[in-house]
Amino acid sequence: MPEPFRHRFRVRYAECDAQSVVFNAHYFAYFDMALTELFRAAFGGYESMLARDVDLVVGEAGARFFAPARFDDELEVAVTVTRLGTTGVTTRYDILRDGDRLVEGTVRHVVVNLGTHEKTAIPGWMRDGLEPYAG
Amino acid sequence: MPEPFRHRFRVRYAECDAQSVVFNAHYFAYFDMALTELFRAAFGGYESMLARDVDLVVGEAGARFFAPARFDDELEVAVTVTRLGTTGVTTRYDILRDGDRLVEGTVRHVVVNLGTHEKTAIPGWMRDGLEPYAG
Amino acid sequence: MPEPFRHRFRVRYAECDAQSVVFNAHYFAYFDMALTELFRAAFGGYESMLARDVDLVVGEAGARFFAPARFDDELEVAVTVTRLGTTGVTTRYDILRDGDRLVEGTVRHVVVNLGTHEKTAIPGWMRDGLEPYAG
Amino acid sequence: MPEPFRHRFRVRYAECDAQSVVFNAHYFAYFDMALTELFRAAFGGYESMLARDVDLVVGEAGARFFAPARFDDELEVAVTVTRLGTTGVTTRYDILRDGDRLVEGTVRHVVVNLGTHEKTAIPGWMRDGLEPYAG
Repeated sequence: MPEPFRHRFRVRYAECDAQSVVFNAHYFAYFDMALTELFRAAFGGYESMLARDVDLVVGEAGARFFAPARFDDELEVAVTVTRLGTTGVTTRYDILRDGDRLVEGTVRHVVVNLGTHEKTAIPGWMRDGLEPYAG
Repeated sequence: MPEPFRHRFRVRYAECDAQSVVFNAHYFAYFDMALTELFRAAFGGYESMLARDVDLVVGEAGARFFAPARFDDELEVAVTVTRLGTTGVTTRYDILRDGDRLVEGTVRHVVVNLGTHEKTAIPGWMRDGLEPYAG
Repeated sequence: MPEPFRHRFRVRYAECDAQSVVFNAHYFAYFDMALTELFRAAFGGYESMLARDVDLVVGEAGARFFAPARFDDELEVAVTVTRLGTTGVTTRYDILRDGDRLVEGTVRHVVVNLGTHEKTAIPGWMRDGLEPYAG
Repeated sequence: MPEPFRHRFRVRYAECDAQSVVFNAHYFAYFDMALTELFRAAFGGYESMLARDVDLVVGEAGARFFAPARFDDELEVAVTVTRLGTTGVTTRYDILRDGDRLVEGTVRHVVVNLGTHEKTAIPGWMRDGLEPYAG
């Protein structure tokens, strides 16, 4: 198995709800933030993808919640690419606090043409960039 | 099959991202908003649940995205209770625009004691209230 | 003084923070939501404005907070147009619960050309539409 | 004038709206995030404040927007304490990109007792911690 890509960040006050824990929807925004950082490392970033007329849309997303994250927690997201298909990329996210897994998530993206928004094959530069993070 | 609970709302500008579509994480907040309304109809609302020392935590959440919702779209969420377990409630959400399904989601909640946050059996009043929405 | 435009909505769980009150930033999103509804009544809505090559950017925004709104509160936003300048529109927002004012806000928008994003004079149809809400 | 406290962060995709710029309300969440970091440096952090039975509520907030921030921009918030009153703390925020000021904001907080939520005098340890950032 490859080493996952790791991104660290802190929970913001506005992301916690009246239960004093991170509201579930925000984890999906955390996944997106971590993927942005993985893209930067893998092929120069999201903007460089758009510059090559490629965009991504989310086809499916899911998460299991084991323990709550709280305000000011310093969290780590570990991202791996679990599937590099013809037009789809599936990524897995583990959100950790001090090594304990709080949340596990999966997102399936579909590669589309920036202009037409039609499905398109994963370009070579994207596949090459993502492969080091794939199992 | 029972009639789903239905809640209508409009997409806000702040919920749309640079692709001019609703950012995926916001759909999970929409699910929560619709469940709040179902709870109001089913047993007097979320606050009346807390007043009876019961709270809910999210164990699992997922969604499939078929077509994007856009700013100012008037959407409908149709909610059904797909499982009433011993301590868990699973709900399903279909987000529709003019009858077309844009997103389908599922959330599993766990019933907990408000004070201890430990799992507890679904109380009778909650089960009775939710049953009309269950398959 | 003209009657303000009024829009009602409920506070969502995800908008409340660990103090169990609406996080201050969300009120600015509420202002925007209410303005969207005023625009619908005034001149056919935000999209019809874009269709006429006009867009708005926020130049300034402020709010005073008198009392907190809480989860599930049913709130009313009362909007008035306090200034219709050459290129700028200033609006005032009062957020009320059961007639009590919780928050008072002001936002100054600048009218821009959709393509160039340069300042442009308020078009006649916009001025005519907004005038009934202006003091 | 004292050196402002500085905090750097990146704009997330979910914070940008259909104009491809950061939605105005998110800047107020950025201010809060920067203040959390200033508190960490000044007196051990927000949690240590709560542990001493002190909390803060927002009395007033405002911002002027000079130029838009965009997705993936690396921004800096420079925070100064502009007023240390009897029960109130006013802070000023400048949001910069490559040294250019995009947004200027001001927030007035009121110090309250954690339990009663009544106004209380700024404690000595808070005043001592904030003074190095005050003009």
